[in-house]
Amino acid sequence: MHALLAAGETNRGALARSTGLSAATVATVVSDLLAGGIVTEVRLTSGRVGRPTTTLRLNGNRGRIVGVDVAETYVRAVVFDAALDELAQTEVATDEHHDEPDYVIDAIVNALDTALKAADATRDDVLGVGISLPGGMQHWAEVSVVVPNATWHHIDRLRERIGLPMVVDNPLKAIATAELWFGEGRRRSSMVTVNLGTGVGAGIVLEGTILRGSQNTAGEWGHSLLSFEGRRCRCGRDGCVEAYVGVAGIQRTLSEIDPGHPLAAEPMQREFIKALPAALEQVPPDPAVAETIERTARYLGSAIADLVAIVNPEMVTLTGWTAWALGDHLVPAVRLRVLQEAPGDSAADLDIAVSSVRGGSVATGIATIALERFLGDVGLLTTRVPTAL
Amino acid sequence: MHALLAAGETNRGALARSTGLSAATVATVVSDLLAGGIVTEVRLTSGRVGRPTTTLRLNGNRGRIVGVDVAETYVRAVVFDAALDELAQTEVATDEHHDEPDYVIDAIVNALDTALKAADATRDDVLGVGISLPGGMQHWAEVSVVVPNATWHHIDRLRERIGLPMVVDNPLKAIATAELWFGEGRRRSSMVTVNLGTGVGAGIVLEGTILRGSQNTAGEWGHSLLSFEGRRCRCGRDGCVEAYVGVAGIQRTLSEIDPGHPLAAEPMQREFIKALPAALEQVPPDPAVAETIERTARYLGSAIADLVAIVNPEMVTLTGWTAWALGDHLVPAVRLRVLQEAPGDSAADLDIAVSSVRGGSVATGIATIALERFLGDVGLLTTRVPTAL
Repeated sequence: MHALLAAGETNRGALARSTGLSAATVATVVSDLLAGGIVTEVRLTSGRVGRPTTTLRLNGNRGRIVGVDVAETYVRAVVFDAALDELAQTEVATDEHHDEPDYVIDAIVNALDTALKAADATRDDVLGVGISLPGGMQHWAEVSVVVPNATWHHIDRLRERIGLPMVVDNPLKAIATAELWFGEGRRRSSMVTVNLGTGVGAGIVLEGTILRGSQNTAGEWGHSLLSFEGRRCRCGRDGCVEAYVGVAGIQRTLSEIDPGHPLAAEPMQREFIKALPAALEQVPPDPAVAETIERTARYLGSAIADLVAIVNPEMVTLTGWTAWALGDHLVPAVRLRVLQEAPGDSAADLDIAVSSVRGGSVATGIATIALERFLGDVGLLTTRVPTAL
Repeated sequence: MHALLAAGETNRGALARSTGLSAATVATVVSDLLAGGIVTEVRLTSGRVGRPTTTLRLNGNRGRIVGVDVAETYVRAVVFDAALDELAQTEVATDEHHDEPDYVIDAIVNALDTALKAADATRDDVLGVGISLPGGMQHWAEVSVVVPNATWHHIDRLRERIGLPMVVDNPLKAIATAELWFGEGRRRSSMVTVNLGTGVGAGIVLEGTILRGSQNTAGEWGHSLLSFEGRRCRCGRDGCVEAYVGVAGIQRTLSEIDPGHPLAAEPMQREFIKALPAALEQVPPDPAVAETIERTARYLGSAIADLVAIVNPEMVTLTGWTAWALGDHLVPAVRLRVLQEAPGDSAADLDIAVSSVRGGSVATGIATIALERFLGDVGLLTTRVPTAL
């Protein structure tokens, strides 16, 4: 499945080569997938001499998968076909100052329905819905959003309102899945994807497998220390990475540099981040903003060096809306800082880049988890992937 | 092999049950190990009715394995039989202010020869020598000790002086191996062992496998940040965990609390650490030392909380000579701090304890790696374990 998704169109011989499986195994798996309607084949004979070639691809028409990315400032629902090609998406802006469960559930249902309508799909077409909720999922049965402190015991209500096969996981697992299936994870055995937005975290892939940890909270690097007894983080701990490189942290850095700067008072995080590249690109560049980006790169580089020290991955990718907006301005300075700060030569061969998974890696990743779940439920995926719910 | 070592004495049926392998596979593997002289069997028939029982155990007499733990303040060589039962050990004190390669190589050879003599063994008996050198091993071919800054390109000279089959790895991989074969790793799928001494690091076991990282430097948590732009660490970075909970860091904390304290001027690290429990146990306890231990527990707890945030293990064990000396005084306060500082409830089910692997987990672990290498070299271990050299 993984090889087929990565290749788009392929054939049995190429699948055997790319997976290292025997031709017989590939034939068996493909025939199961064909019988289940997951894969289609196209026979190409016209204009050719000799044996006809058979091309395989995922059968997008088998149904629809929806990925929902619930963030602090928006809910985005993306409708994919069963080959995980994007059909439509909807974004509902939410106010980061409200996080009451009903407010969030309303936004999820609203985004889902609007996106389905935009994709010309009905609920009957939907094979599965994946919902990414911020924070760690602590228990398989009782999902909690640990960051910020609010605890969610409202999954049953959400499930009822959605009324479709549903999986819930956290954005770190979603971005790791997206990177594993569609990004650098296809080529690397170990990598970390750093998610930068209101919240900050890391999706960790080791030996081709997503690191979940004993309570599915692995990757909460955003709440590891950057500075002992440093800035108070909204999670309650002092000195977390997120308090420096999350959007509120970046804004606080600007306030420290120039308390009177107009952007220091911008109430909406998305507007604040959008304004930064513009301020850098004006002539001359806004000096307080330039200094803010420089300090943020130092903070981020030091925090990524900690990941290198502990996990020593082959590559680090940056994703999330802050990374899309500021990546070009941050990456060179971050690279330099990581080289200086990682132990010994451990970062000498490390690649750091903005993720190549575009268009919302959280939504793409959580949809992939929903597709995996669906394939598992119909008995077509033997290596069952653990998901939170 | 792992199941056999863990069990001590067992039989084929119990091995099949404990490993989940089929009876036929166990029979094949056992017969290879018997033929190679690695395993012996004892037939028990007398005084019994019915089928004779056959008990298997590792054949300790097959030869000797030596584990050498090279630390900043000592070199310890431990001679094991081929069942990894300890026969003898020697410790050569070294001066932490000297780290010239020849000085260190002399100490290694001296410790090795003395330990062999004490075990009544000759070089001909030795199946393999494992040598743990501090710092990360960056490349499989060119070993470097990255922390402190000195780089070691002297492995060839060491190999020549040793004159026996030799593997080199770093202490973090050694303690993880010891914990995996003899400690909590037998019962846990994910765990972190924190090594506390002059240097500080973490051996990380995930899904029953030691995390090495892309350059074998995973686990260099001692050189992750505790405090941004904090205390200068001997690795050159500012604010590393080691600068607070390594021995020199603990001594610095005491100096900050009471600059005139006699222990603040103790020139030898081992003497300094040995004096702390005594100072705590006197009536009344030495107030500056008590405050030092309290602060150290806060630092260590915060730094362990970072490991929990990123890796989310089931258990954390503490090992190394500082842990043996101060563990009882540190663990309760460390536990409390980790609970407060780890994200959400991610530490709620976490066990923290001093490692049950006694008598030098670095030497035991590196000897185990040497045994694995020997078994691989003679074709008796099919899953070849990666080692640095």
